[in-house]
Amino acid sequence: MHAYRSHTCADLNAGHVGQEVRLSGWVHRVRDHGGVLFIDLRDHYGITQVIADADSAAFAELEKVRAEWVIRIEGVVKGRDAALVNPKLSTGEIEVYARGLTVLGAADELPMPVFGEVDYPEETRLTYRFLDLRREKLHGNMMLRSNVVRSLRNRMWSAGFNEFQTPIITASSPEGARDFLVPSRLHPGKFYALPQAPQQFKQLIMVAGFDRYFQIAPCFRDEDPRADRSPTDFYQLDIEMSFVEQEDVFAAVQPVIQGLFEEFGGDRKVYADWPRIAWRDAMLWYGSDKPDLRNPIRMQVVSEHFRGSGFAIFAKLLENEGTEVRAIPAPMGGSRKFCDRMNAFAQAQGLPGMGYIFWRKGEDGAMEAAGPLAKNIGPERTEAIRLQLGLGEGDAAFFLGGKPETFEAVAGRARNEIGRELGLTEENCFKFAWIVDFPMYETDDEGKIDFSHNPFSMPQGGMEALEGDPLKVHAYQYDLACNGYELVSGGIRNHRPEIMFKAFEIAGYPKEEVEKRFGGMVKAFRYGAPPHGGCAAGIDRIVMLLADEANIREVIMFPMNQRAEDLLMGAPSEPTNEQLRELRLRVVPKD
Amino acid sequence: MHAYRSHTCADLNAGHVGQEVRLSGWVHRVRDHGGVLFIDLRDHYGITQVIADADSAAFAELEKVRAEWVIRIEGVVKGRDAALVNPKLSTGEIEVYARGLTVLGAADELPMPVFGEVDYPEETRLTYRFLDLRREKLHGNMMLRSNVVRSLRNRMWSAGFNEFQTPIITASSPEGARDFLVPSRLHPGKFYALPQAPQQFKQLIMVAGFDRYFQIAPCFRDEDPRADRSPTDFYQLDIEMSFVEQEDVFAAVQPVIQGLFEEFGGDRKVYADWPRIAWRDAMLWYGSDKPDLRNPIRMQVVSEHFRGSGFAIFAKLLENEGTEVRAIPAPMGGSRKFCDRMNAFAQAQGLPGMGYIFWRKGEDGAMEAAGPLAKNIGPERTEAIRLQLGLGEGDAAFFLGGKPETFEAVAGRARNEIGRELGLTEENCFKFAWIVDFPMYETDDEGKIDFSHNPFSMPQGGMEALEGDPLKVHAYQYDLACNGYELVSGGIRNHRPEIMFKAFEIAGYPKEEVEKRFGGMVKAFRYGAPPHGGCAAGIDRIVMLLADEANIREVIMFPMNQRAEDLLMGAPSEPTNEQLRELRLRVVPKD
Repeated sequence: MHAYRSHTCADLNAGHVGQEVRLSGWVHRVRDHGGVLFIDLRDHYGITQVIADADSAAFAELEKVRAEWVIRIEGVVKGRDAALVNPKLSTGEIEVYARGLTVLGAADELPMPVFGEVDYPEETRLTYRFLDLRREKLHGNMMLRSNVVRSLRNRMWSAGFNEFQTPIITASSPEGARDFLVPSRLHPGKFYALPQAPQQFKQLIMVAGFDRYFQIAPCFRDEDPRADRSPTDFYQLDIEMSFVEQEDVFAAVQPVIQGLFEEFGGDRKVYADWPRIAWRDAMLWYGSDKPDLRNPIRMQVVSEHFRGSGFAIFAKLLENEGTEVRAIPAPMGGSRKFCDRMNAFAQAQGLPGMGYIFWRKGEDGAMEAAGPLAKNIGPERTEAIRLQLGLGEGDAAFFLGGKPETFEAVAGRARNEIGRELGLTEENCFKFAWIVDFPMYETDDEGKIDFSHNPFSMPQGGMEALEGDPLKVHAYQYDLACNGYELVSGGIRNHRPEIMFKAFEIAGYPKEEVEKRFGGMVKAFRYGAPPHGGCAAGIDRIVMLLADEANIREVIMFPMNQRAEDLLMGAPSEPTNEQLRELRLRVVPKD
Repeated sequence: MHAYRSHTCADLNAGHVGQEVRLSGWVHRVRDHGGVLFIDLRDHYGITQVIADADSAAFAELEKVRAEWVIRIEGVVKGRDAALVNPKLSTGEIEVYARGLTVLGAADELPMPVFGEVDYPEETRLTYRFLDLRREKLHGNMMLRSNVVRSLRNRMWSAGFNEFQTPIITASSPEGARDFLVPSRLHPGKFYALPQAPQQFKQLIMVAGFDRYFQIAPCFRDEDPRADRSPTDFYQLDIEMSFVEQEDVFAAVQPVIQGLFEEFGGDRKVYADWPRIAWRDAMLWYGSDKPDLRNPIRMQVVSEHFRGSGFAIFAKLLENEGTEVRAIPAPMGGSRKFCDRMNAFAQAQGLPGMGYIFWRKGEDGAMEAAGPLAKNIGPERTEAIRLQLGLGEGDAAFFLGGKPETFEAVAGRARNEIGRELGLTEENCFKFAWIVDFPMYETDDEGKIDFSHNPFSMPQGGMEALEGDPLKVHAYQYDLACNGYELVSGGIRNHRPEIMFKAFEIAGYPKEEVEKRFGGMVKAFRYGAPPHGGCAAGIDRIVMLLADEANIREVIMFPMNQRAEDLLMGAPSEPTNEQLRELRLRVVPKD
């Protein structure tokens, strides 16, 4: 018989009754029923009930074991009475009568229990991560993550992609965040950087003639921590393809992601229709470039109904260039109580408030419009708004005005809130959309033109477009939105050095600067570069969605805390003087 | 039709004759046969011959294209005359008559050619890695590596292992090399370390109750560069299992590695018999703990034949404690010329030389022993040696004496040399052996006891063994040797804190030091740790063996050079003052 186990703790059933077996695992729970001990023995695979009574040679020893001790049991499989069968356990038909016991690993008194899934402070959970990971929920999350990554790989391989590893200790590859630096011992004073993404390397792989690349790639960004972001490293499914246009990338990615969500989404519906939504429309309709399409509400421009109207705030505001009034329709939201709550929500988000109109049954039995706005603009304009928005009795609409960029984000959050409060947002489903036609450039507060997203994307219209108004140029750049999250981001790359230099010049980067910062890639583009494009999908985010977790630390085996510390391993820590000397570094004392 | 290609450059055959097609790829080669242009168009998948004559609308443009330009061709598929069919190409039955051409990416004059595989200096190859990777050999190596990793993953999954990612920005986990450090911006003056291996994390995963872990894991060691070692990061197949003994690990690993070598080894034989060889025997028989078993030579101890003999050097030397004389039998090596060459080899390796005896046909037709040693020890001892070694006419034996550790390594190299020179070493095969029973401890030059290999391995005999002579303790530690390389290394871990503290105490590390350096793992062992063990296999090494490459840079997509520099991306580089300020670091000027 094997030294530790003849079966796992999930293996035994009625077919094994009478067999001598050996099991090893953790003591999940001990119950002492006056002379009869019941021990739930747990391993990775499942739980088996072990019993012993005073007749058992192991009884005295078994009385000493405590929760989370690792023990080995020898015993015989017994069937349970029909009334005692536990259908929730794969081993629920049997129990093992213990005859021998060996303690393989005792446990000190536990700082947190494993059995029972009681809530514990995160600091405790992270300090004793090895205990927390034994809990059913977290164990399940880790297995889900492992299986998700496995499935992604299989799907990519089946689609003809090859996985290649790109360097981790490398040069800086700016993606908008800070680099983690690694001092070089062989070249003191010089530093490597950990890649924020393998962007340049995957493009080089295309230039090197490999047609379809993917990687489950570790990425490193020195960012200030957030609940849904790891403060150090995270993983992305990184993809790049040669000789493709935007729709080719979509055609490659959709079956992978949709299939994955169908495989692991449980009973949640996965919509197969993935609309393309222009970035401008997404901002208008949903107030977000990662809209939650489970919520059917679409915002609309209603400026014309307020221009020159009796609602002076909007009428006046519309005299300024670049302003708009937009409406958030709220079907079934037609009560003053609800409208006031939403108004308060907008105020809490930093806006002066949201005007509203709601439609109710009047005293005469006919529908009437209520709310201060309706009074101010009068019945004709109110009715025109109602007709445009397709609303009726019992519905409401909220209004925001100004330059869209000042209220769009709050409008988006109000839309989410309204959808949720009114029960309009479909539950138990995943709805996807490709957000396309991102603007290539934007202006900052001082009016300076800069890239609005990825500087490596090809401008739609190429060189010709760059010679016109840069703020009108769209990029071949796209995101995949799912349930309000950005799951994937990518673009068709700018593989032509002359267009690339022009694109950077517009954003204020002279040629020398581009050569300096992206020298390897620019050089490569001069020696026969294919048109190429791709994307990256956030693994942690995908697992969070599938596991229905809001905190990224619930889907990472050994996460940092919010202060970017590893409480279990004690990182970061003070270096030795010897290490600093070898690196020729000195830590500057705090002022 | 697709914007870039209706087919890849490997797709077309006689079945496509007459079809209008579109192909994109790199210009591999241009030949101008007086008015007819032949262009080999290459992509990831293959090569297609494109032709054009003066009647083609594309002719004038095609005349301008040069090697490594990326072009798109429209044309019609034509069958080749039987005499012109190229059976080496999947597209050898056809050619494409070009009617249209678009240049997708032109190329400057090349610093090195892609066609022809001409040898180029490594600095050029690394600076233009994207060109070097287009070459058939390197392209093939990268695809081999990708497929090897894929196969390893599939094999591990099939065997019930789960892949989990462990942290990369983490705490120091000493494995005998230097750590790469990462300064923390949020905690100035403190540093993270990149893991030399996920050793502690994989053990924590076992303590956390996951039964079978693997990972294709990046590892980071700040080591001085060597041809067969990356100076920064490398990958290992990292494995850990709970509730196992040594033979369970072997049983899990052998099918994976053997299957992999059978899958990718081409026509090379993969031996299925993997003997277990005690470390002490490996050192004696082969002079190496990673013996090349394709070479049948086994060394033997022959001290008794020299003790008190007329060969004063050995006789005298044997009077000192701990000395031995060992013989390397060399079947078919029985010529003075060969023996002198091997003697010179030993001298070049730093030894005074190797004595030898060889057996030849004497003038009287009978076998006679020749060489100075034979004369010194006389015929009886010479004959006893011959009988012990099982040698005969035409054979030779070489002798080394002293404390084994002073000559073992050279003896091992001499054995390799002899096997190769005499053609005894089998070619075109892979021969494996598990090296077991490594000593737990060794003494350094000053007689101080230290771990000889992995301090985390369980000592054979547990606590009881540690209470005896530490130098006699074997560890549950093992290597897998293949053709003279160490492919895998592992052990059954010491999961019992009290045995661990004792083991470290013997090596001179007090309890506090162990708690400080391995605090996370030691803490975990106090809360119910299962017996566990595992190993790690070097991916780069495996691919090198399968690709038959001697330089690790031939099997890595973007390798560093021997000075740990990335010549393409320009790493390492000077940080900005802003970066140093954020990290509160100062570079100490050179003295």
